[in-house]
Amino acid sequence: MQTLSGMDFLIAVDHLAVAVFAVSGALVASRKQMDIFGFVLLGTVTGVGGGTIRDLLLGDGAVNWVQQPSYVAVCITAAAVTYFAAHLFQSRYRLILWLDALGLSLFCILGAEKALAVGAHPLVAVIMGIVTGTFGGIIRDVLGGEVSLILRKEIYVTAALAGALVFVGLSLAGAGGLLAFGSGFLCCFAVRALAIRFGWSLPAYRAREGRDVS
Amino acid sequence: MQTLSGMDFLIAVDHLAVAVFAVSGALVASRKQMDIFGFVLLGTVTGVGGGTIRDLLLGDGAVNWVQQPSYVAVCITAAAVTYFAAHLFQSRYRLILWLDALGLSLFCILGAEKALAVGAHPLVAVIMGIVTGTFGGIIRDVLGGEVSLILRKEIYVTAALAGALVFVGLSLAGAGGLLAFGSGFLCCFAVRALAIRFGWSLPAYRAREGRDVS
Amino acid sequence: MQTLSGMDFLIAVDHLAVAVFAVSGALVASRKQMDIFGFVLLGTVTGVGGGTIRDLLLGDGAVNWVQQPSYVAVCITAAAVTYFAAHLFQSRYRLILWLDALGLSLFCILGAEKALAVGAHPLVAVIMGIVTGTFGGIIRDVLGGEVSLILRKEIYVTAALAGALVFVGLSLAGAGGLLAFGSGFLCCFAVRALAIRFGWSLPAYRAREGRDVS
Repeated sequence: MQTLSGMDFLIAVDHLAVAVFAVSGALVASRKQMDIFGFVLLGTVTGVGGGTIRDLLLGDGAVNWVQQPSYVAVCITAAAVTYFAAHLFQSRYRLILWLDALGLSLFCILGAEKALAVGAHPLVAVIMGIVTGTFGGIIRDVLGGEVSLILRKEIYVTAALAGALVFVGLSLAGAGGLLAFGSGFLCCFAVRALAIRFGWSLPAYRAREGRDVS
Repeated sequence: MQTLSGMDFLIAVDHLAVAVFAVSGALVASRKQMDIFGFVLLGTVTGVGGGTIRDLLLGDGAVNWVQQPSYVAVCITAAAVTYFAAHLFQSRYRLILWLDALGLSLFCILGAEKALAVGAHPLVAVIMGIVTGTFGGIIRDVLGGEVSLILRKEIYVTAALAGALVFVGLSLAGAGGLLAFGSGFLCCFAVRALAIRFGWSLPAYRAREGRDVS
Repeated sequence: MQTLSGMDFLIAVDHLAVAVFAVSGALVASRKQMDIFGFVLLGTVTGVGGGTIRDLLLGDGAVNWVQQPSYVAVCITAAAVTYFAAHLFQSRYRLILWLDALGLSLFCILGAEKALAVGAHPLVAVIMGIVTGTFGGIIRDVLGGEVSLILRKEIYVTAALAGALVFVGLSLAGAGGLLAFGSGFLCCFAVRALAIRFGWSLPAYRAREGRDVS
């Protein structure tokens, strides 16, 4: 269904997303004052974690980085560069937030795309988009002893949901790969960007104090 | 080996157990004041977590909810209902404890049954019963930042062990599926029920103060 | 490629490493004053955790202990013995450190060896060595509520890296199995031993206070 250049494009984007998440993992390592191998370990787990869980769940052959070690090489490189350059990144915390938003937007589409490619149900494809986008960060936070991503009062999972929904919907409606990819990506990135820019969050559940569901 | 109605029964019971655990995950989300997507995420992970790990470990085809998305649909529905109805549940904490006991009792038998069905060793089948029954809750507690289930001073894992042992033992002894299922279920539920009702716990390890193993 | 006695040797060593890690998991259970089933659960997860994740990632047939339940039987036995004998072990904390170093050294070689045996890329083989050696302990710490291994300021992951690198390098260079195994093992054990003996750690990343990378 896809042309060779389409595959090449997806693989290049996948490496970019992996690198971005590896940097976010390495930055948690810098907050925890780990050594360089801690940077590499946490960066690599964050970079390939979401895709690994997706591939295990789909059960379609081996995990991507086991087949194609370039993913891991990208993580190691990105984490090591971060170790020596983290002082630059740290003064640019918002840059990291935006890189993370970029990685999330790429991964939620890539995860849903892979699930559709192996014939999964559309609901499963949306879930795989969310899993791919968020589980690297969830593992990063659990291992790094940070408050888990999913406990934070931010629109994050929701952005991945929106992007994956749009991508899967357009794909099933017969839209071309690039249109579906671009629309899903922009939708996720826009939701996340607005959340970052304006500090958006969804109404949280509040017990006993009345409800605040708009 | 099983009649169609036997399979239907198992699948119906499996959906019931998944829904019960999804509610327990959503209730942790309510304690953490998450938004509705947090409820759905934590509820879904809790509902399908134990079965997912069982299926990955057994390596027998894909994970159940990837094949049959109705499991996930049940989780999403149960978690969303809990979001809007949690104030009812919360005033009924003991109801939740009993629902959780019900889910544990169902899952420990269903996990052991699936392992036996793919030809696993009886010891492995017992472990798969425990894994299926308890790992959803373990993941829920790790992600939700709660004190892990296995650290609590309650008879919980032990109940799953008892139920799975009885089920596997009777199955190997040639008892009919319904007898083995019913006996294992009742055994697990009874142990857990007595633990809830009377606050039972096993003697904990105590260093330096002498031992209290009866 | 391997003689029967070579396989037997690997399997025996694998069981030894599993038992050593199971004891380390059970000792965390003793620090948390769990009951005997908590000892067995945490001991078993720690003992087989690293190898389980390796086998899932490699995707080469089922997980080792599902195929061969003797691994789990060893964990259960080791954890149960620890429950009744932990007061002996606790007064010998350094003995535990050394046993753990032994398990780490064995597992990092065994993990890399299995990856090479199924035709994985050398980089992947090194990673599988690290994963096998360290993830049992990482799971132990997450479930047991301890500060994660990878957050501690010790040379630990680095030792596994060194051992796996030496083993994979020598194996690819055509060295005999025993030479590669012995060299990798000694390298990992020596690095870890020096770290324990002299309290070695790598320079940690320090923000704002200048860098301390020698």
